[in-house]
Amino acid sequence: MDVNLMNVLARVSKSATHAEMANAIRALSMDAVEKANSGHPGMPMGMADVATVLFTQFMKFDPADPAWPDRDRFVLSAGHGSMLLYSLLYLLGYPHMNRTEIERFRQLNSRTPGHPEYGHTPGVETTTGPLGQGLATAVGMAIAEKLLAARYGAGIADHRTYVITGDGCLMEGISHEAIALAGHLKLSKLIVLWDDNGITIDGKVSLADSVDQLARFEAAGWSASRIDGHDPKAIAAALEAAQSSKKPVLIACRTTIGYGAPTKAGTHAVHGAALGKDEVAGARAALGWTAAPFEIPDNIQKAWSEAAGYAAGAHADWTARYAKLDAATKARYDADLSGAIEPAVAAAVESFKKAASESGAPQATRISSQKLLDWLSPAQPNLIGGSADLTGSNNTRAADMKPVTPDDFSGRYIHYGIREFGMAAAMNGIALHGGFIPYGGTFLVFADYSRPAIRLAALMGIRVIHVLTHDSIGLGEDGPTHQPVEHLAALRAIPNLLVFRPADAVETAEAWELALQARSSPSVLALTRQNLPIVRRAHTTENLSDAGGYVLRAPEGERDITLFATGSEVSLAVEAAEQLANEGVRAAVVSLPCFELFAKAPAAYRASVIGTAPRIAIEAAVRQSWDIVLGPEDGFIGMSSFGASAPAGELFKKFGITVEAIIAEARARLAPRKQ
Amino acid sequence: MDVNLMNVLARVSKSATHAEMANAIRALSMDAVEKANSGHPGMPMGMADVATVLFTQFMKFDPADPAWPDRDRFVLSAGHGSMLLYSLLYLLGYPHMNRTEIERFRQLNSRTPGHPEYGHTPGVETTTGPLGQGLATAVGMAIAEKLLAARYGAGIADHRTYVITGDGCLMEGISHEAIALAGHLKLSKLIVLWDDNGITIDGKVSLADSVDQLARFEAAGWSASRIDGHDPKAIAAALEAAQSSKKPVLIACRTTIGYGAPTKAGTHAVHGAALGKDEVAGARAALGWTAAPFEIPDNIQKAWSEAAGYAAGAHADWTARYAKLDAATKARYDADLSGAIEPAVAAAVESFKKAASESGAPQATRISSQKLLDWLSPAQPNLIGGSADLTGSNNTRAADMKPVTPDDFSGRYIHYGIREFGMAAAMNGIALHGGFIPYGGTFLVFADYSRPAIRLAALMGIRVIHVLTHDSIGLGEDGPTHQPVEHLAALRAIPNLLVFRPADAVETAEAWELALQARSSPSVLALTRQNLPIVRRAHTTENLSDAGGYVLRAPEGERDITLFATGSEVSLAVEAAEQLANEGVRAAVVSLPCFELFAKAPAAYRASVIGTAPRIAIEAAVRQSWDIVLGPEDGFIGMSSFGASAPAGELFKKFGITVEAIIAEARARLAPRKQ
Repeated sequence: MDVNLMNVLARVSKSATHAEMANAIRALSMDAVEKANSGHPGMPMGMADVATVLFTQFMKFDPADPAWPDRDRFVLSAGHGSMLLYSLLYLLGYPHMNRTEIERFRQLNSRTPGHPEYGHTPGVETTTGPLGQGLATAVGMAIAEKLLAARYGAGIADHRTYVITGDGCLMEGISHEAIALAGHLKLSKLIVLWDDNGITIDGKVSLADSVDQLARFEAAGWSASRIDGHDPKAIAAALEAAQSSKKPVLIACRTTIGYGAPTKAGTHAVHGAALGKDEVAGARAALGWTAAPFEIPDNIQKAWSEAAGYAAGAHADWTARYAKLDAATKARYDADLSGAIEPAVAAAVESFKKAASESGAPQATRISSQKLLDWLSPAQPNLIGGSADLTGSNNTRAADMKPVTPDDFSGRYIHYGIREFGMAAAMNGIALHGGFIPYGGTFLVFADYSRPAIRLAALMGIRVIHVLTHDSIGLGEDGPTHQPVEHLAALRAIPNLLVFRPADAVETAEAWELALQARSSPSVLALTRQNLPIVRRAHTTENLSDAGGYVLRAPEGERDITLFATGSEVSLAVEAAEQLANEGVRAAVVSLPCFELFAKAPAAYRASVIGTAPRIAIEAAVRQSWDIVLGPEDGFIGMSSFGASAPAGELFKKFGITVEAIIAEARARLAPRKQ
Repeated sequence: MDVNLMNVLARVSKSATHAEMANAIRALSMDAVEKANSGHPGMPMGMADVATVLFTQFMKFDPADPAWPDRDRFVLSAGHGSMLLYSLLYLLGYPHMNRTEIERFRQLNSRTPGHPEYGHTPGVETTTGPLGQGLATAVGMAIAEKLLAARYGAGIADHRTYVITGDGCLMEGISHEAIALAGHLKLSKLIVLWDDNGITIDGKVSLADSVDQLARFEAAGWSASRIDGHDPKAIAAALEAAQSSKKPVLIACRTTIGYGAPTKAGTHAVHGAALGKDEVAGARAALGWTAAPFEIPDNIQKAWSEAAGYAAGAHADWTARYAKLDAATKARYDADLSGAIEPAVAAAVESFKKAASESGAPQATRISSQKLLDWLSPAQPNLIGGSADLTGSNNTRAADMKPVTPDDFSGRYIHYGIREFGMAAAMNGIALHGGFIPYGGTFLVFADYSRPAIRLAALMGIRVIHVLTHDSIGLGEDGPTHQPVEHLAALRAIPNLLVFRPADAVETAEAWELALQARSSPSVLALTRQNLPIVRRAHTTENLSDAGGYVLRAPEGERDITLFATGSEVSLAVEAAEQLANEGVRAAVVSLPCFELFAKAPAAYRASVIGTAPRIAIEAAVRQSWDIVLGPEDGFIGMSSFGASAPAGELFKKFGITVEAIIAEARARLAPRKQ
């Protein structure tokens, strides 16, 4: 036994045995699921030994300060086993986690919802439940740790990221993207404990899967081993070996699901339902657990409290090192960790807008975004860019961003590979970790691939920025597989997601500014492939997009008609309005770069923007979501089918999204009034 | 050299050399991309040797009958390399593929769109472009072949499925789901040719990936080897070895992207843009290609035509075997392949509806679906069920369905594993292959995972049925990660997708019938976890859901108000209407099980259903998409945020989706009129 392992084992409590400590998790989990008559007892009972060794002998954390930046991160990717985590947080004395909360498992407004929810329960590092995403999010956390260490040194950033996954996580496709990225980037402080219990909901894993997971992880550049997940010494030895790995580590923990349940252990019957009175009684007997439901014997609680104290010791050491940082470094670190936007950002946006308004040169908004990023990147040095292998198309790499490589994390640009979902989940992990503001690019149509992670970011309320280019049939020849038609609507349907579709370079800058300022919401920037005229020719310091929509062109006198549009269609609306003016029709043009912000604007403001004249909306996408301003009788010019492969100009004609079509629609709507 | 390989090599043409035949693909690809000034020349030029050997020495197909059921399937998973496929179809003499079409590459209404489109170009087996999905769809095709062989024998169903993938396909998460499923099911007739060129859009693959792909595939139960993708003998030897494999086969073909281009070959500059005049000239010189653009020398065309004739020989043999089938078997086979719905289905639906209406017993619609499937399954024996490891929750397994296992494909139920996306793509492949009608289950919230494949099914216009249960906050304690809120809207936004949300057992049967009848559309059935009362107490033979919506409850006399609802909220609307009747308010209730069908119903019918009274809609989801019946001033009772973890009844109260809330809203809307 080596010296390190002896040190680790020295943390083993004298107050209670390992089995007693692990059984505390099992008992709480059984009792909570039984009382709720809902939940998943099998995983917590199976992984109690692993979790006990991990939290009492290896993890560094401080229950008194769950937000301490250099804590080890723990991600329960198999989120349905939430009682494992809640039991740990309770036994370790985390804030707000008490017996009442455990007894209120899965009840309204408890701290113990069915799946762990970030922002809801201190000690929960990320919301999990949608399988595979916890693992992929943890990859982002491990990336963030290395980014931070490259900037501030190992004295300030030096923690591990531990993950518990189940079989489901490893079957999901996202797991491939996650482990390939982690292996490529040599994230050696990422340690995955796989609950290798051979059981899924439908029965045995062998019903549907034959993958040699150890070989698979090794093929992706991981170190992998298999242990008995009920042997505390084997668990400790594997975790100890993992501490010095040069690669990310998979530890396959052979466990019995529902360990202790007399008739259901080792079967899918114990996965996702209360055990029932008799089975609970049998399990208590088998485990030698005699305490009343929800009660923890003093010696066992004492042992857990000792473990919490030991784990917290590292916090004091870290604080001492932090205190010794020079003032400039400390200020930089505090700023990075605060998540605040630098004052220089507003100045960069202002200058960019002014230059764009004055120049008036047509530009694709993806290019505008890149040029702005060249200014934003030095202004906000904790911005971390990236793309899912479309750097030159998404225009996501700022001039001063050098790539992150496996051996050098001082860079600020991540080549995420052809992994849209993995990128989105990793960005969630980077944002959750703290210290950085991640953004990443792909085509808008592939938001379908990353959608589950975008949803999770919205649910968690975290700032992640998705740069989604090629935002309509305007991308042209690549055809309907690559042309988003329904994606704006589908994204606007997600609560707490800001979907921006800027009309020109000026609105692109405004959208970026708002996305950076949105501390509690992810954002999408839908940008064009094709050039757009500048419609905001008069410079304003004010961010007009902040209200979600505004009158871009007001006619003289009362409006005859109002044209609403976003993105590439705003300039069509402006041109139509100008031509209509020649016919004596007074058309207003409203640009609506962000429906979500417009919905939140004061009602009186909204009413003034919408006006009372007949309405036509123009967007090269489906009509759904446009009821934000349209009634059933109003006009819409857009798409009602998938697109086609042809040069962009021909497609706009084919699908009738043209200045002429707008004018014709306006005339048709005004004709009855003029008669 | 073994005898088989000698036979294969006997197919090598005497009219032209291998290099000449492969260079014909390269020249056409260069020329077409150059003329369009758009497209991807690198892959076709790199894989021309592999494709030439595959199509001239191994594939069986008949250009005169691209729909011959027992043809080998070819899937270009790296769909951006579409000119590879178009060149092959042209050289082999497929219908409608002529020089004009090649010259009109990527132009409006050509047969040669930017990415291969199923249903648009004969010989294109599936629409590809969204990376990874071609491979996953091919898995479904290979499954369908084994299902068919288990029913009709190897004389009738005995073909291979060949796939060309790029690095992108193998980085995408879906590739993991696909190869794990294929390896588990021992799909030994699936042969994947990986264009191992080491280049992606951003640069070298090594920028973002370090996976040992051969080891990875072997870990998933595949046979894997690496060859020089420019050596025709090595290609033939590897393909020959693959013919007798007991496992699915990966052949890594080391190629030079843009082979022949003098300065750009082997770099990402050749991936996705026209080569330019000078580079094309250089490539022609390097390849010794002297024919004019788009011209194929006679001897080379002759060689390709000979290859097509050889490949077609197998068709005549098959037809002879088919002719010898006994009449009953032939009738069964023809029925399966026709895609027709058996008359017994209508009878089963009718009986089920009648029994449900008469019984009136409350039932979760997921249970109704299962009970109906017990009747449908014997009535429609080519139905293939499955679930992404939620069989007991999705209630997708009919009583007479035994599972498909790696060694026995006579079953009809597929345990897809925890692979929602892989399942959806495999179902696309089963539907595209023909012979079967696939359906599969997961939770509605995880439609986000399978969404890219649902979209592709809608784009292709194929019949695939998604049974998506746990369709609202009504699932209760699992909480917001598992509660769909925006998913109905997001799915309704996809063109050509039928989204059904049935209100009770009767509408569930009607939805199933319509989904089965929809030959050119995929369907979603959104079903409840919780019990619902039967609202259709009066039996009708007519399928009322066929119009998408109908008046479920008409008050006596003129309507005061109309309540619109779907699924679990319909019974709330009915109860509210009954209570309002006690107050003298005449409320109609409209059930809207399918917005897409309602939108297609005649305008007069829709107007009669919608009526002119004030409107309130009720759905436990976001309002978006409800503008199908609501104007901005109308009422909506539903969700505007994510859900929460608690028992379902408490959640409906918390979010205000109750009979009381409907009544209050109705009173508020009627008050001004009554004053």
